[in-house]
Amino acid sequence: MAIVITAFEKSPDGGLGLARDTRVRWALEEVNQPYEVRLVSFRALKQRAHLAIQPFGQIPTYEDGDLVLFETGAIVLHIAERHPGLLPVDAGARARAITWMFAALNTVEPPILELVVVKFLEGDRPWKAGRLPLVEARIRHRLGQLSDWLGDADWLDGAFGVGDLMMVSVLLRVRPSGLLGEYPNLAAYVARGEARPAYKRAFAAQWAVNNPALPPA
Amino acid sequence: MAIVITAFEKSPDGGLGLARDTRVRWALEEVNQPYEVRLVSFRALKQRAHLAIQPFGQIPTYEDGDLVLFETGAIVLHIAERHPGLLPVDAGARARAITWMFAALNTVEPPILELVVVKFLEGDRPWKAGRLPLVEARIRHRLGQLSDWLGDADWLDGAFGVGDLMMVSVLLRVRPSGLLGEYPNLAAYVARGEARPAYKRAFAAQWAVNNPALPPA
Repeated sequence: MAIVITAFEKSPDGGLGLARDTRVRWALEEVNQPYEVRLVSFRALKQRAHLAIQPFGQIPTYEDGDLVLFETGAIVLHIAERHPGLLPVDAGARARAITWMFAALNTVEPPILELVVVKFLEGDRPWKAGRLPLVEARIRHRLGQLSDWLGDADWLDGAFGVGDLMMVSVLLRVRPSGLLGEYPNLAAYVARGEARPAYKRAFAAQWAVNNPALPPA
Repeated sequence: MAIVITAFEKSPDGGLGLARDTRVRWALEEVNQPYEVRLVSFRALKQRAHLAIQPFGQIPTYEDGDLVLFETGAIVLHIAERHPGLLPVDAGARARAITWMFAALNTVEPPILELVVVKFLEGDRPWKAGRLPLVEARIRHRLGQLSDWLGDADWLDGAFGVGDLMMVSVLLRVRPSGLLGEYPNLAAYVARGEARPAYKRAFAAQWAVNNPALPPA
């Protein structure tokens, strides 16, 4: 029985790898698990069949036989628990890796997602120019703390793991703004993540969906 | 060796139970684990000793012997994994409970936290009145989807578990705005959570910290 995930039929980022299916693809590639992808249109996301497995009308979902999961964090953690490669065996190191996964999703990503609000969702509102520097300041606050923690280490807590997979994925979302480049150790950290063969395979797979007529990026 | 968590010396909510240590206290109470609390001042949150265990200067943290964790989601999951009561034994049901925990933290809570931004962090800005209805609309969108999913069930996926603990905690944050009351089944769901003896003990413990001269709420 194959693992089946869902992804956008056409990602809003055109294949830059920022849609959340890339995170699940990356996790599956790291643990060498094959998977199939079911593409979902924006219209289908809001329809009953999809809402029955994803109550919030989002991608990705994860199906493995009778098991149906949603939420990228839950899916990536599930993959990491079932296959060696993304979670340490030592109980303490395992709990710390999970801690960094939550830190990526709950502490570092929320201010980054505010960029989408200020630039796009509210991009035609008169407060855009006034709010942007406030949002950027909140992002810099978190990036500065993360940069201080990372220092000159390669990964957040010893070997590469599920926490790094999620943190690199989150930081990739802020790179187009230019803010990531203000923290050279974080920029290098993201580059280390992107250099992993599993990430490259995941990126190429979502690129091919979104750019069927173009050569690999 | 006792479990030690950190909490605000003086919570910004004055003891309404919305600070995140309440979520960890509730989890520990559900699994009947005693714990100690180290109170941290706003000043100490930003100092080296605290940043060494919580790189983002937040509460709560969790210490159990040599193990030091942060991020409420990671701490609550760790407690649920180590002690029976918050995660089902069945592997599929367990993964779904964790899915709901992530849904609470990553899909439902982020728009709710925007209320803090618009009302307080940016409460003196000229765009407050213009943005508030936009933020409220995004919250209603998520609450409506959650309400549709819950229907007339007691809990999100069968028996009460870690997903409900986190979702109720997240919804408690939106109740003061009046938006929760627009969804009677969600309001009743939150009330069921609050009625649990473990929640009451957790609430009373944080209330006592913040209101030492007052009787129990």
